[in-house]
Amino acid sequence: MAGEKTINFTRGVPATESFPVKEMEEASRNALEKFSDVIMQYGKAVGFQPLRDWLAAWRGVPTEQVMTSNGSLQMVEFLCFHYLKAGDVVFTESPTYDRTVTMLRRHGARVVGIKLDPDGPDIDALDAALKKDIPKFFYIIPDFQNPSGATCSLEKRKAVAERARRYGFPLVEDAPYRPLRYRGEEQPALADLAPESVLHMLSFSKLIGPGVRAGMLYAPAEIIAKIGKIAEDTYVTPNLFSQGAVFEFLAAGHLPGQIEKLKALYAPRLDACRDALREFLPGAVPTRPDGGFFLSVTLPEGVTTEKVMEKAKGYNLNLAPGKDFFPDGGGDRFLRLPYCALSPDEIREGIGRLAKAVGDVKSGK
Amino acid sequence: MAGEKTINFTRGVPATESFPVKEMEEASRNALEKFSDVIMQYGKAVGFQPLRDWLAAWRGVPTEQVMTSNGSLQMVEFLCFHYLKAGDVVFTESPTYDRTVTMLRRHGARVVGIKLDPDGPDIDALDAALKKDIPKFFYIIPDFQNPSGATCSLEKRKAVAERARRYGFPLVEDAPYRPLRYRGEEQPALADLAPESVLHMLSFSKLIGPGVRAGMLYAPAEIIAKIGKIAEDTYVTPNLFSQGAVFEFLAAGHLPGQIEKLKALYAPRLDACRDALREFLPGAVPTRPDGGFFLSVTLPEGVTTEKVMEKAKGYNLNLAPGKDFFPDGGGDRFLRLPYCALSPDEIREGIGRLAKAVGDVKSGK
Repeated sequence: MAGEKTINFTRGVPATESFPVKEMEEASRNALEKFSDVIMQYGKAVGFQPLRDWLAAWRGVPTEQVMTSNGSLQMVEFLCFHYLKAGDVVFTESPTYDRTVTMLRRHGARVVGIKLDPDGPDIDALDAALKKDIPKFFYIIPDFQNPSGATCSLEKRKAVAERARRYGFPLVEDAPYRPLRYRGEEQPALADLAPESVLHMLSFSKLIGPGVRAGMLYAPAEIIAKIGKIAEDTYVTPNLFSQGAVFEFLAAGHLPGQIEKLKALYAPRLDACRDALREFLPGAVPTRPDGGFFLSVTLPEGVTTEKVMEKAKGYNLNLAPGKDFFPDGGGDRFLRLPYCALSPDEIREGIGRLAKAVGDVKSGK
Repeated sequence: MAGEKTINFTRGVPATESFPVKEMEEASRNALEKFSDVIMQYGKAVGFQPLRDWLAAWRGVPTEQVMTSNGSLQMVEFLCFHYLKAGDVVFTESPTYDRTVTMLRRHGARVVGIKLDPDGPDIDALDAALKKDIPKFFYIIPDFQNPSGATCSLEKRKAVAERARRYGFPLVEDAPYRPLRYRGEEQPALADLAPESVLHMLSFSKLIGPGVRAGMLYAPAEIIAKIGKIAEDTYVTPNLFSQGAVFEFLAAGHLPGQIEKLKALYAPRLDACRDALREFLPGAVPTRPDGGFFLSVTLPEGVTTEKVMEKAKGYNLNLAPGKDFFPDGGGDRFLRLPYCALSPDEIREGIGRLAKAVGDVKSGK
């Protein structure tokens, strides 16, 4: 019975069946055959040159505006070393990716959360915050945001870019989910709207697999040079062995097909999530993402995520606390639902269990 | 003519021809075939479980006393996050690995260098330093030290371990060259002499290839748990894709043969370096390493490394400054000679050019 198996709505992990294993086997062999002198050796801290060239061509920028790293979270750390000293202010959306908040705080940042609406940051809240502090940077996830699933509207993208220009602070645009749009129209990246103000981050964790730890940063060349030096002082050289394989995967032309495969796999999971919420939890207010890894809900009045988490354990359902995503408090009734690693049946079963846990909390069981 | 080709005595890089390319191709394929669900995915911050199990068995310790990371320099950073706040004192040998000094200073450490003799740290100097400060840790490279080539004697190992116990500070024993002994008798690791006081670091950069970025830490389980959390906050998961391949390489039993291959390749290079110094530069005082990647010399009185570097460029010879290895000054006449990536002929040719550059400085040319 499905009821016996534990279901996890906890971490935003890709589906195991999405990994392009055969292609990576071939890519790995090709990389070692062509590039072993380079990918087994020390090299530049900014990463494997052919991969950087490929990434530059992908976005149509010169190679000196791209660097790679061992995953993109660590790129945030490099930006912290570059931009921050203890006590400095950084803006994020609220809610935002919890690991970024942990990272910022490790570097002594004062994190100011800008309220996030379903169509992007609340611009009035941003303006109010800017009256108090000009941040060292604003960390923002405009597409299929983690944890909310929100996507920033064109109007708000323009407003955010305009504020960055007017006040002279950089935007750190984290875009790992951007290529995974299941419906609706693509919006321009902040980096397209204000290239001089934006550090654009991307990762292959959600497109190829997290295990290859391939993150990347697009930024003005002088920033890349400085961040590259920080990377060198941190780990000398990123993982060229896996960067070689990633490059061969890309050069073989596998990425577009892989992205289509992911969309075909994940879109029905998002639908299953929406449908099950409508059926089992009509009292909760879900976001309406058009892509990515996450949907989130605001639980009914008086029902806290913490209490529901407790009850859910009894139904073999694991949830994650909502509060961790809110840098300045709040999120008591916020629940993130990462749906990609679950089948539609598991999602339906899981949300059924969630509804039971919510019912138990409501009825004070 | 050999004289036309640039010769680099700059960085401690392995020889390209040492890389076990075929074995890594096979290992990579096997890893993807057996473990793709794990090595393409997010996982534990302490690393790929089968690799940790192998490493634990290798040293005869429980798995919870081992973690892996993306290269060992970054492990030093994790230790900095764990042990240091700005202004704290750390001891190193003097000279020591320059990248570690950069890392320690990035974390605000006050680095105190303990004079290094050819048989290990000057114990009187250590005792004198301990009268002023008990360090947060003492970073030490007992075997075939970088940059000097010195190896710590058994007597001094015991003295250092005794001081660590008496004053209650940990020893960070960095041992990447330890398996590469070309002659003489192996000494016990500090971790063998004082397991409770020692964090033992190792890396496959010098044994398989730097590009796989596989560093590791052996430490008491409660330290591993804390450092693992710091690693998680830094990059979620290390590079499992390359750790899978490294594990398969090890599990296939390739390491002992690979180490023998490296010894057979590098021992004659060390000999070539010694012989050429004796022939061309009898006025310089070389160290007498029995393994590893480096030999160093003290240039004749009045001849600074800086001046020789300048002159050497004219002979197509690149050298590295000596001062960077000395945390509290000195090293004006210190020259590190990394010999592993050069053939015996290139070494002889390079030291011939070095002698010419030294001659030019002496004669005030």
